[in-house]
Amino acid sequence: MPGPLDGIRVLDLTTMVSGPVATMMLADQGADVIKIEAPAGDIMRQYGVVHRGMSATFLSCNRSKRSLCVDLKTAEGLAMVRKLAKAADVLVQNFRPDAIERMGLGEDIVRELKPDIVFVSISGFGESGPYAHQRVYDSVIQALCGLCDIQTDNETGRPHMVRTIVPDKTTSLTAAQAITAALFARERTGKGQHVRLAMLDTMVAYLWPEASSPLTFLDSEQDPAQEQAGPDLIFRTADGYITAAAVTDAEWAGMCRAFGREELTLDPRFKTAAARGHNRTERRTIMNREIARWPTAEILARLDREVVPAAPVLKRAEVIADPQVVENGIIEVREDPDLGPVRQPRPAARFTETPAEIRSVAPWLGADNAAILEELGYDEAAIARLAEDRVVHRQEPQDG
Amino acid sequence: MPGPLDGIRVLDLTTMVSGPVATMMLADQGADVIKIEAPAGDIMRQYGVVHRGMSATFLSCNRSKRSLCVDLKTAEGLAMVRKLAKAADVLVQNFRPDAIERMGLGEDIVRELKPDIVFVSISGFGESGPYAHQRVYDSVIQALCGLCDIQTDNETGRPHMVRTIVPDKTTSLTAAQAITAALFARERTGKGQHVRLAMLDTMVAYLWPEASSPLTFLDSEQDPAQEQAGPDLIFRTADGYITAAAVTDAEWAGMCRAFGREELTLDPRFKTAAARGHNRTERRTIMNREIARWPTAEILARLDREVVPAAPVLKRAEVIADPQVVENGIIEVREDPDLGPVRQPRPAARFTETPAEIRSVAPWLGADNAAILEELGYDEAAIARLAEDRVVHRQEPQDG
Repeated sequence: MPGPLDGIRVLDLTTMVSGPVATMMLADQGADVIKIEAPAGDIMRQYGVVHRGMSATFLSCNRSKRSLCVDLKTAEGLAMVRKLAKAADVLVQNFRPDAIERMGLGEDIVRELKPDIVFVSISGFGESGPYAHQRVYDSVIQALCGLCDIQTDNETGRPHMVRTIVPDKTTSLTAAQAITAALFARERTGKGQHVRLAMLDTMVAYLWPEASSPLTFLDSEQDPAQEQAGPDLIFRTADGYITAAAVTDAEWAGMCRAFGREELTLDPRFKTAAARGHNRTERRTIMNREIARWPTAEILARLDREVVPAAPVLKRAEVIADPQVVENGIIEVREDPDLGPVRQPRPAARFTETPAEIRSVAPWLGADNAAILEELGYDEAAIARLAEDRVVHRQEPQDG
Repeated sequence: MPGPLDGIRVLDLTTMVSGPVATMMLADQGADVIKIEAPAGDIMRQYGVVHRGMSATFLSCNRSKRSLCVDLKTAEGLAMVRKLAKAADVLVQNFRPDAIERMGLGEDIVRELKPDIVFVSISGFGESGPYAHQRVYDSVIQALCGLCDIQTDNETGRPHMVRTIVPDKTTSLTAAQAITAALFARERTGKGQHVRLAMLDTMVAYLWPEASSPLTFLDSEQDPAQEQAGPDLIFRTADGYITAAAVTDAEWAGMCRAFGREELTLDPRFKTAAARGHNRTERRTIMNREIARWPTAEILARLDREVVPAAPVLKRAEVIADPQVVENGIIEVREDPDLGPVRQPRPAARFTETPAEIRSVAPWLGADNAAILEELGYDEAAIARLAEDRVVHRQEPQDG
């Protein structure tokens, strides 16, 4: 069975992460995503762990796609992509403002070729304003949107970054949903449209529900930082770290029994949920001391017997071997002829009728040039000449 | 113009955050989302800042929806929701495994009433496995998925939580996209389906692209933690904190000029991007020292003149007043008759033809009982009787 977006063709002119991860979701869901790269290739092809010439990060942002590597500064290259646009449902780009117009693939031109196309522009800051001219780095968005403020160290007052690119990846998810909504609307109305998305806007919206919402009521504003006092829910055991949470009365009583400290259930500081919230710091100090007495496996077993939500803090190499992760089949390993065994997480959402799936690992640069040109009607001789004239380019796997 | 999901009706049986934020996105995009709450109401109605009886967090997770408050333990209440299901396109629930069946609204029953419904189940851990029986807390998912590992303190080795509920909100976005994809597929195939989503699966997939991808190639695995050594990109100024990033040669040269330290461009430790990566810690130490000499406004102006990406680290109360945030119109203020002026972030994705928008603030519990029952064909007397018999419930705003 094909995925829910079977039959949709996406021209993907994006690089880095925010655009590519969005189109990867669509590709895993069955869309034919053609990644159009300049001769130098997406810069992410050089980022992080590289194995036989393939970057693990690039692969993890560009699964299930095809690659066309074409020099858009040549007339023939530009004509080729315009030809592709005629049969495309979506075009996605994340260049800086006005760059796509200068490349000759602005919305006006593309819409003339394909009137009902969904044209998607992902930017860092929007089209105008004090930061719009800046190159976009995830760290700059983290600083501006309040995420670093959320991570402020309670003791030193120093803000901190989150060490995964939350703005990039959250923008990917938001973009994938918006593109899908625009495709749904086109199905009903017959009309395409332009969908615009800025990372900054995305992050302000993403953080708001609990992290910024104390600013909601102008008549009773509160400082969002107040909600975040106190230590976090990570506890050191005799041999590692766990998390444990006792929100309800039953969970708190269970936790006290798990510690062998039943008398704590009588302590007035912790008798009700409200009291436990009020005396959060004292309670967590006690939890710290009690949990530190046990090895991880033993205290987790005791908490589980008492129906207290708890889990070990896993390192990423441990995550992929965790029994729940294995039970859910989240991590798939496939044998690739060039790369050997490759690990990837399957698409998170599971569809009973139109399953999403990893259809292939990421393509080598230009791997699908010939197939795509054939579909456009170029014959073998023309395809060979385009390669010779360096209009299209192709990279081979390196020796292992 | 209506939003892209105009004409879609969603029965929203979810509580807390992951489900409600997903359906809020659909509601802002034009879907008629009916939030079905038990007489006690979604527990989030009591969480965080509360103004005249309305929680800021609840409001920020439930905009643009209607509320039906009904006791599903009564035969009449259950019949009412089943009647609603006949005209619904989507039903979303995030109860623990098997609970929805026990309530009499399992997929089999609902699909008989509406064969092409998109039935959506959001869970913490999936349907089976060692954690599936646990109540879901965001902190437990953070511990299991590797997010706390990513936040490990380099010096002490202690893992840390991210202090915003990333698993909950990332699951919302992933769910909203999957629901929209299932609606798109139904438009083409005529078939509904069951979409299942676990927070744990979502987070493993979300973190992978750069944070876990060193585990991609089984033949050349690397420890993901190695990629994260070194201080982060936050720098103390004379009067605050900023971020600044110099990745390209031009940006590095610009940064040295902004510092008045042109001679650093000649330093062989920092001459190339590769060298700067290798000597990251030394370079950031120098950046720390130089940036500390300037007030925030002055060093940001100097960096901007030299085309170096940089920004202040903003507190959340500052975010809403930032010139770029204002330019983008991210924060909207509307006057509510009960709540006074209310701040909310508008939907991040902007559609030219089918604009998404905040259609209303979150509903008071049961605010739309009468209107929804009327649409179902109940007359005024029947509606009054249902309220008297306490099948439906309603909460009024409190005095200010």
